Amino acid sequence: MDILKTRILAEGVAESDSILKVDSFLNHQVDPELMGQIGDEFAAHFSKEGITKVVTIESSGIAPALMTASSLKVPMVILKKEPSKVLNQNLYQTVVTSYTKGISYELTLAGKFINENDHVLIIDDFLADGEAATGAIRLIRKAHATIGGIGVLIEKSFQPGRKKLEEQGFSVYSLAKIESLADGKIRFAE
Amino acid sequence: MDILKTRILAEGVAESDSILKVDSFLNHQVDPELMGQIGDEFAAHFSKEGITKVVTIESSGIAPALMTASSLKVPMVILKKEPSKVLNQNLYQTVVTSYTKGISYELTLAGKFINENDHVLIIDDFLADGEAATGAIRLIRKAHATIGGIGVLIEKSFQPGRKKLEEQGFSVYSLAKIESLADGKIRFAE
Repeated sequence: MDILKTRILAEGVAESDSILKVDSFLNHQVDPELMGQIGDEFAAHFSKEGITKVVTIESSGIAPALMTASSLKVPMVILKKEPSKVLNQNLYQTVVTSYTKGISYELTLAGKFINENDHVLIIDDFLADGEAATGAIRLIRKAHATIGGIGVLIEKSFQPGRKKLEEQGFSVYSLAKIESLADGKIRFAE
Repeated sequence: MDILKTRILAEGVAESDSILKVDSFLNHQVDPELMGQIGDEFAAHFSKEGITKVVTIESSGIAPALMTASSLKVPMVILKKEPSKVLNQNLYQTVVTSYTKGISYELTLAGKFINENDHVLIIDDFLADGEAATGAIRLIRKAHATIGGIGVLIEKSFQPGRKKLEEQGFSVYSLAKIESLADGKIRFAE
């Protein structure tokens, strides 16, 4: 998606060989118009999948996922990072490790919002090691739903996320593929 | 806003005298169409304020704030709950205590996204004790910006948030005012 790549080149900062900061339009300040265009792009790409819910992970995925859900006219479900204190409910939980951030967190889904009739589109901001997406998939499977696809804004193609997800049979659509962040330079894959 | 009140009555759960759960359309599952209508309502209400940025607090405010920013055609800025490890930057930080959740957290704003030329609209999901909004105001003032108004979806009118904010001279616009959650019943204020 050229409009996203242009913004990444203009405003993104390669903080290290593996960290790309896009704080000015995605992760801290958010450009609603760009998010709308991204939502339309994901909705068009997955339009024939019969998606019933868009699922994202708290919190950087919320803006593009909301716009995708809006364009597809289906609800969005946010997988919550706060472990719920209320455990006498129908809750699915799993632990996700973020190698990028060096932390682990618990991801929670209330069972009433996803069920066996749902065909889910997962939307997230970054795909790196694929740990967050894999955690989301575990929760969606616990809810007996199926997965219609995975859409990410920025894929770090030098990390194993895509391979992990494709080996499980999932369709991954990324709007910008980063080949390298070495020497402070952002290089896209062809 | 009648459409929001209808949803609160139909789907909200008064978990205690002070806790209202609206997980099915706002906090866990999110209705994009309703968020769009809410965004348009806030944008219309504050249309003459010359708003340059919409600010919200991670993460339940993101969906309505994004739609408000989209409608006003201005950027959204998310005040982050993660304390940043990188401190050699122009960062504003403050501690907020949530009495509802019984926790304290650090709220962070990168100085480059708000400056003295900004006139900010704060959007959040709930107004209860006003601690989150007051924390947001502290950060926006540290950035030398001015505040054009505060919009909340659900105000707990039996808690002191509105009074605190109005005493500081701020204009508060809430779409639904809850007078009481006693006995598991949701009662709106007139």
